[in-house]
Amino acid sequence: MNMVLRPIGMVRCSLRNRDDCPRQGCDGGVEAAIVLDPEYCEGLDGLEAGRQILLFTWLHQAERDVLKVHPRGDRMLPLKGVFATRSPARPNPIGLHRVEILEKKGCSLRVAPLEVLDGTPVVDIKPVIDER
Amino acid sequence: MNMVLRPIGMVRCSLRNRDDCPRQGCDGGVEAAIVLDPEYCEGLDGLEAGRQILLFTWLHQAERDVLKVHPRGDRMLPLKGVFATRSPARPNPIGLHRVEILEKKGCSLRVAPLEVLDGTPVVDIKPVIDER
Repeated sequence: MNMVLRPIGMVRCSLRNRDDCPRQGCDGGVEAAIVLDPEYCEGLDGLEAGRQILLFTWLHQAERDVLKVHPRGDRMLPLKGVFATRSPARPNPIGLHRVEILEKKGCSLRVAPLEVLDGTPVVDIKPVIDER
Repeated sequence: MNMVLRPIGMVRCSLRNRDDCPRQGCDGGVEAAIVLDPEYCEGLDGLEAGRQILLFTWLHQAERDVLKVHPRGDRMLPLKGVFATRSPARPNPIGLHRVEILEKKGCSLRVAPLEVLDGTPVVDIKPVIDER
């Protein structure tokens, strides 16, 4: 089965290394630009400023061979399965981020709050529906 | 960049073809089993019955070369960009499903409500935190 993700665009923001990244968007995420590849631009029709979206990223620096982590990286907390945490380390490091569209301009969305590295690939965008 | 998803398990349920599938879990999703591959079982530690989780699937029968769709498949509605809809057709057909764990037994979770085909690959599980 072909389960190869295609990057549809990229995150541009001020976070340049992993130590700069807050643990969740609500812990101090920053404003970021989602720059879509022109070939996928049409897929944004119907999205506009003020909408909440779910942004799916590929956390390209995350480890994929880890199944247990200390929650929030706190070594005082007992190890937990990665599927019970939001750790980026997991077999498929898909990032899920709920953000608001601040501005839409051509193939770019200005969004906040986001907590991923500059250069992170974007793989999907879905609208928030009924708080899901 | 290696953006190849690894299946971590599979959905087993009563939905055998696309016409059987409701549009969203809340539109009549069914009870389903998430059967994890034994090698990923440890990653479930810390999850238990009663928890809400986000299940990420790979919608293997979805088209990937579609950028506009009629919302909810209704041809009376004007075409909309796929990123403004929850259509399974999209460049990366990642399914996102909020479900409740009804039972955990070894490497399997019984969950509901789910609206995907029997045999759909599972690619990630994350806990719901603060309604996100």
